[in-house]
Amino acid sequence: MSILAVGSVAFDNIATPSGKAENVLGGSATYFSLAASYFTDVRVVAVVGEDFTDEHENVLKKRGVDTRGIDHAEGKTFRWGGHYLDNLNEAKTDFTELNVFEKFQPRIPAEYQDSSVLFLGNIHPSLQAAVRLEMPDVKLTGGDTMNFWIQGANSELRETLRLVNILLINDGEAKMLAKESSLPRAARKVLAMGPQALVIKHGEYGATIFFREGAFGVGTHPFRAPALPLEEVKDPTGAGDSFAGGFMGYIASQAQLSREVIKRALFYGGVMGSFAVERFGTERLQSLTRDEIDARFQIFRELTHLE
Amino acid sequence: MSILAVGSVAFDNIATPSGKAENVLGGSATYFSLAASYFTDVRVVAVVGEDFTDEHENVLKKRGVDTRGIDHAEGKTFRWGGHYLDNLNEAKTDFTELNVFEKFQPRIPAEYQDSSVLFLGNIHPSLQAAVRLEMPDVKLTGGDTMNFWIQGANSELRETLRLVNILLINDGEAKMLAKESSLPRAARKVLAMGPQALVIKHGEYGATIFFREGAFGVGTHPFRAPALPLEEVKDPTGAGDSFAGGFMGYIASQAQLSREVIKRALFYGGVMGSFAVERFGTERLQSLTRDEIDARFQIFRELTHLE
Repeated sequence: MSILAVGSVAFDNIATPSGKAENVLGGSATYFSLAASYFTDVRVVAVVGEDFTDEHENVLKKRGVDTRGIDHAEGKTFRWGGHYLDNLNEAKTDFTELNVFEKFQPRIPAEYQDSSVLFLGNIHPSLQAAVRLEMPDVKLTGGDTMNFWIQGANSELRETLRLVNILLINDGEAKMLAKESSLPRAARKVLAMGPQALVIKHGEYGATIFFREGAFGVGTHPFRAPALPLEEVKDPTGAGDSFAGGFMGYIASQAQLSREVIKRALFYGGVMGSFAVERFGTERLQSLTRDEIDARFQIFRELTHLE
Repeated sequence: MSILAVGSVAFDNIATPSGKAENVLGGSATYFSLAASYFTDVRVVAVVGEDFTDEHENVLKKRGVDTRGIDHAEGKTFRWGGHYLDNLNEAKTDFTELNVFEKFQPRIPAEYQDSSVLFLGNIHPSLQAAVRLEMPDVKLTGGDTMNFWIQGANSELRETLRLVNILLINDGEAKMLAKESSLPRAARKVLAMGPQALVIKHGEYGATIFFREGAFGVGTHPFRAPALPLEEVKDPTGAGDSFAGGFMGYIASQAQLSREVIKRALFYGGVMGSFAVERFGTERLQSLTRDEIDARFQIFRELTHLE
């Protein structure tokens, strides 16, 4: 099954305790698409400026990503600069230049209409909703959001949440969205807003998925996947988007959507996140093999597996 | 096999978002002993004051805990008051009255000498070392410590760490002890200080155990046990000590000490921690059954188990 991913493409300036990188290809759609490309066919909808060259586009094309939905607009590509201190779970933004992203109007090529799975990356909730409504035949919709929209576009976000099957956010976002400090209670409130399942990403501690009663199976027992304790995290940028790419990509690659598939997908999400942070930008995600991915999946499995 | 536990017995005043409790029986040795008592024979070494009555001692005795090592001194028992805000992982101390605990000199009854497992609760590292040296025949020693000793008695602590087989501390303590912000690197440094294994407790995210090469098995792969996402945490006090009690208690109950036993012990640690926080003080730990414990162990297992 094919995934259509909509989100940002960006050039990032990143500083971490391990070093610096400037003008590296990034953005939520980029990390997501590369991560998902190891599991299924990926189509991307995004906007770039004139500084986005064939070389950049080839990073996606080499991984088989269909880039016909990338809109080439006049002006510069979205740019973000940020740095990480000792707490690698939290980026400090140095600058944000929206550039062409400011007037992004997702344009979905006709050839993308047969996509089975949709992923609404972290863009304005109204744009997320518009894309979802233009894709009436998708079987499953995943979505992301962030504090900025939870606070600044809450009513639009609440509309979008009614169109999303699986929402993927982090601890702080879940607590803010639900106005609730207990994660399981926050999860229950978020699920009442629309999604059938909620993935809460805990950074270096893994992720937990909560289900609405009857969603994709029986009961409401949550499920938790670990993250690998990594000796060195070179660059945490894109870890969450790579997690989403692995998670949604694995789901899209499976004929049936069961609880067991979703559990494995949560592990694959962690696997792709763990690769992403090993190098700056998308470097590590460009050159993986499925064997490497499955070998790390086994390591993740062993990490919490009792005989 | 029997466990000897040394640590504090206290009366606590606790305020959490769920309510308040005053003068409730607490202390590291109390939580530890009650939690471990569901798995093995427990002997406790601690000091109490004249306000510690038979009724209090019976809380331990009813669970079969051998209290002959509790020293009844003149004066008042150790008292601690603290509260928790929205972040239930972190206690804010309101007051600490050391009372009889200030001059605590652990006195080990002769009948305790055949204990196989020793747990050095969070007391001054020099006292921990003295107890360990008085118990030359123990097969396994677990230990705990805290920021206060890492900063205030570092050289004494470093001596004690050479006498401990398994150290159990939390993320912040591990980072402080190793002066290292990456947990796996911090773990490597702490293991170089003496322990064969290090359990790092992550609060609501579970715990990870790191091994020195060759310790209790082959390789150095870490292992991670989840924590149960709990709707309501009434009182986090003693969660870490209860974790240690479940962990060490399960280990002491097994004839052989293998990696697989330690992995299961890590899950049992999480199980006992999850029970402890359901009620104020030690209330929940006083009235469990092994069936309830094993049922929750299965829930923990399902929480991360892939078919």
